[in-house]
Amino acid sequence: MNKVLKNIFTVAVVVGTSAFAKAQNDSITVRKIYTEALTKGQSYQWLDYLSNDIGSRLSGSLGAERAVTWTKAELEKAGLDKVWLQPVMVPKWVRGEAERAHIEGENARITSVPICALGGSVATKSVGLRANVVEVMGIEELKALGEENVKGKIVFYNRPMNDELIRTFQAYGGCVDQRYAGAMEAAKLGAVGVIVRSVTHSIDDYPHTGSMSYGDLPISKRIPAAAISTKGANLLSTSLKLNPELKFFYKMSCKNMGEVESYNVIGEITGSEFPNKYMVVGGHLDSWDLGDGSHDDGAGVVQSMEVLRLMKAVGYKPKHSIRVVLFMNEENGLRGGRKYAEEAKAKGEQHIFALESDSGGFTPRGFSFDTDDRNYNEVLSWKSLFEPYLIHDFTRGGSGADIGPLKATNDGIVLAGLRPDSQRYFDHHHAAIDTFDAVNKRELELGAATMTSLVYLMDNYIQKPAKLIQAPIKQ
Amino acid sequence: MNKVLKNIFTVAVVVGTSAFAKAQNDSITVRKIYTEALTKGQSYQWLDYLSNDIGSRLSGSLGAERAVTWTKAELEKAGLDKVWLQPVMVPKWVRGEAERAHIEGENARITSVPICALGGSVATKSVGLRANVVEVMGIEELKALGEENVKGKIVFYNRPMNDELIRTFQAYGGCVDQRYAGAMEAAKLGAVGVIVRSVTHSIDDYPHTGSMSYGDLPISKRIPAAAISTKGANLLSTSLKLNPELKFFYKMSCKNMGEVESYNVIGEITGSEFPNKYMVVGGHLDSWDLGDGSHDDGAGVVQSMEVLRLMKAVGYKPKHSIRVVLFMNEENGLRGGRKYAEEAKAKGEQHIFALESDSGGFTPRGFSFDTDDRNYNEVLSWKSLFEPYLIHDFTRGGSGADIGPLKATNDGIVLAGLRPDSQRYFDHHHAAIDTFDAVNKRELELGAATMTSLVYLMDNYIQKPAKLIQAPIKQ
Repeated sequence: MNKVLKNIFTVAVVVGTSAFAKAQNDSITVRKIYTEALTKGQSYQWLDYLSNDIGSRLSGSLGAERAVTWTKAELEKAGLDKVWLQPVMVPKWVRGEAERAHIEGENARITSVPICALGGSVATKSVGLRANVVEVMGIEELKALGEENVKGKIVFYNRPMNDELIRTFQAYGGCVDQRYAGAMEAAKLGAVGVIVRSVTHSIDDYPHTGSMSYGDLPISKRIPAAAISTKGANLLSTSLKLNPELKFFYKMSCKNMGEVESYNVIGEITGSEFPNKYMVVGGHLDSWDLGDGSHDDGAGVVQSMEVLRLMKAVGYKPKHSIRVVLFMNEENGLRGGRKYAEEAKAKGEQHIFALESDSGGFTPRGFSFDTDDRNYNEVLSWKSLFEPYLIHDFTRGGSGADIGPLKATNDGIVLAGLRPDSQRYFDHHHAAIDTFDAVNKRELELGAATMTSLVYLMDNYIQKPAKLIQAPIKQ
Repeated sequence: MNKVLKNIFTVAVVVGTSAFAKAQNDSITVRKIYTEALTKGQSYQWLDYLSNDIGSRLSGSLGAERAVTWTKAELEKAGLDKVWLQPVMVPKWVRGEAERAHIEGENARITSVPICALGGSVATKSVGLRANVVEVMGIEELKALGEENVKGKIVFYNRPMNDELIRTFQAYGGCVDQRYAGAMEAAKLGAVGVIVRSVTHSIDDYPHTGSMSYGDLPISKRIPAAAISTKGANLLSTSLKLNPELKFFYKMSCKNMGEVESYNVIGEITGSEFPNKYMVVGGHLDSWDLGDGSHDDGAGVVQSMEVLRLMKAVGYKPKHSIRVVLFMNEENGLRGGRKYAEEAKAKGEQHIFALESDSGGFTPRGFSFDTDDRNYNEVLSWKSLFEPYLIHDFTRGGSGADIGPLKATNDGIVLAGLRPDSQRYFDHHHAAIDTFDAVNKRELELGAATMTSLVYLMDNYIQKPAKLIQAPIKQ
C-alpha cells in the first residue's frame, strides 16, 4: 500500500470506528430511556391525577388553576434546575347550563339531539332559538346560496370527515373551517344561528366542541354556534330531506367573561455546554371542558414532564438547556405559546429546537418536522436507532400550535411534533369521552420515551445555523 | 451509440416502463382496496353481530354453533363461488358456575380475589380447595424447590410479563409456559392446585383464561388450575411475604365433556388462471367464553371475510383460488387448523400462500412472514406500495397457529400473519373485557384492507417453488 492510500485507509477506519462506537452508544442510551419509561415511568400516574383528580382545564377555570399549581409542584419534586410560572392573560369563556336542542317536525313532534356550544360562542336568548334550517356542505356552498336563502335561518354545516384519508389529521383539516369560521360567514348573510357537524369519524351521540371565531364582527351581529353529534347531524339531514320546513330549536347560556391571568408552567435542566441555547419540549395544560382532556392534551403534558424526568433517571446531562413548557390556552387563544416566544425573544434566549406532543397519547409512530434539509437528513440518519421501537414515520410538515410562534423569532429553529397513531384520536377529541380510560399506559410511556430519545439525539447532533455555531461555554 | 449498447438501452427502457406501469397499476388497486374498506367496509357491522348478537364462541358451545351458521350464511350472501362447512371433532369444556377464591389470613380474615379456571382444567371438589401456597416465578424455580416444598400445596406462578419488550407478543411468549404447563409440572411434585398470574401488562381486576395441558398425567393426578387477576396476584404475593402460612381457597366446577362435532367455515373465489393452486386467508371462529371474543379472534374472522368481499367489490378476479377459512377450535385444540391441512393434503390441493389475522383488530403495522429468501425479498419490494398506509413492519418469524399445519404438507408455502399494533392486545386477551367496544372501526378496516392488498400482491407476484411452476390452466 502506498503512503497516501494507507493514510486514507487509516482515516477511514478511525472515522468508521468512531461512528460505529457513537451509534452503539446512542443505541444503548435510547434503550435505557425506553426501559426506564416502560418499567418505572411516571407519566401514567401523573395523567391519572391530572385527569381524575383535577379534570377539565379550560383557560380561566378552577381546573386550569389547579393544574398550574400541581404541575409546578411535581416539576419541583423532579429535581430540575429551575421551575417557574410565566404569567399570561387568557380569555375566559364558560359553558353555563347544559345545552338543549331538538328537531321540531310536523305536528310539533319533537326529537332531542345532543349539541354543545362551540368555544367562544355567544348564548341564545334565554328562551332559546327556533328557526328553519338550511343545510350546506361548507362555506363555499353557503356563499353560493346567498343572503336570500340564508337570512333568518339556522345554517347547518354538515360536511363529514373524509374516511378515505389514512392520516386522520388531514381529514380534520378538511372539515374544521366550517367549525371555526362557519358562524362568522353565516352571520354576514343574515343567519340567526349555526349548527356544525361534530368533527369525528365516529357515528355516535357525542358532540365535539372546539374553537370558533367571529373575526371582527361587531357583538350585535354575533350568532350562537353549536356542534351537533354525528348521529344528530345524520338525523337532522334526513329529517330535512323529508320536511325542509322543519324547525330546529336550541338553547345555550355560554358566556365570554373577558380576560384573566393564568400561567405557563416551565421547568429547566440547564445545559452543561451551551446553557444559553434552549430546547423546548411541551404540551398544553388547558383542555376543553367536556371530558377531562386526557388525550388533548393531558398526554402531551405528562409526556413532556416525563422527558426531563427520564433524562435525569438515566443519568444523561444535556449539553443544551432543556425546558419543559406546559402552555396555557392552546385551545381558545394560543396565548401561552405566543407569550413564551415573545418573552424568549425579549430576553434574547436563542431556541434551537422545540418538540410538541399534542396529537393524543396513542402508540407513537414518528415525528413531523418543520426544518431545513440539513437537519431533516440528520434525523433520517437516526431511523435505525428508532426501528426497534417501531418508530418509522419521519415526515416534514407541521409541528405543534404552541411552539409555532418560536419560528418567527428563532432563525433556523427545528420544530417537531410527535405523531402517534391517529385512528382513534378524533373519536375522543374535544368531547365528553376524552377521558383517562381511553389512554393506554404503555402507549403513553412509549410516546414519552420516543420524545426523550429525539431530544437526546438533537442535543448531540442538531445542525445549528451557521451563525449560531460557537465554542461551548464551559461552566 | 453502438448497436449492442442501443439494444441494452432499449430493453432497459421497456423493462423500466413496464415495471413502472405495473407499480402504478398496483398502487391504484391498493388505493381502491383501502378506499372501499374505509368507506363501504362490512367488517365492523359483521363484528357487531358476531360479538353482540352471538357473543362468546367456545368450541362446542351454542355460540360456536350459531357463529358457524351465521358466517356461512353471510359468505353465501357475499356471492362467492363456493361456500361450505368442513366437519371437525372438537373438545368441549365448560366453565360451570362462576369461580370463587379468597386469601385467608390470620384470624381467618378473608379477602376475595378474582380468578377464573384455565381452559381444560378439572374442577375442585365441590367444597372447594384450601391449602398453603408456594409462590414461584416459573417452572424452573418450582423444580428446584422439589417435592418436599411443594407437596400438598397450591403452587402460585407469579412471573409477570416483561414490560421492557416493545412487541408484547414476545413478553407473552416469555410467560405463557407457566399457564400451559404449570399445572402438569406442579402435579408431578405433589401440588394440590395451581394459581397462575394473568398474562397481561395491565394491573387490574380481570383474570385472563387460556389453554393449559396436563400432558399424559392420568386423570387421578390432575389438579385444578386457575388464573388470578394481576391485582389479585400482587395482593397474594404481598400477603405471602407478611404471612407465608396463609391459606388460599378456591372453588371451580368446570368440566371436560368429551368431543363434539363442529365445523370450519370455508368460502372460495375460484382462480381464473390457477384454479388448483390455493391461497388461504383466515382467523379462528371460536373464542374463549369470558368476553365476546371481539379481538381474539372476531376481528380476524370478519377481516378475512372482508378480504374476499373487497376483492369482489373492487372488481379484482384472482388468478389463484382464494379461500377464506374460519377455523374452529384454535383456542383449546387447534383441531380446525389440523383438519383443514389434513383434508387439503388428502385431496391434493396445493396451497401456496396462507395469511392469518389472529393478533387483534388494532391498527395494522405489517406482517410477519414464514418463507424463503426469494419471497421475503419479493415482499420487501412492495414496501413503497404500503407506505402511504403506514404499513412498515415486514419481519420474518411466525405466522398463525391455524395455518401452521399447512407448512408440513405444502412444500414452499408462504405463511404470513397480520401484525397490528400490539400494545393494548393483552389487556383484553382471554378476559371479560375482550369486547366489541374495544375495537375501533377504522383500525379494523385498515387491517382488512392491508390483508387484501397483500393477498392481491401475492396473487400476482408470489415466487412459486420451482417444481410448482406450470402453465396457467385456461378455463
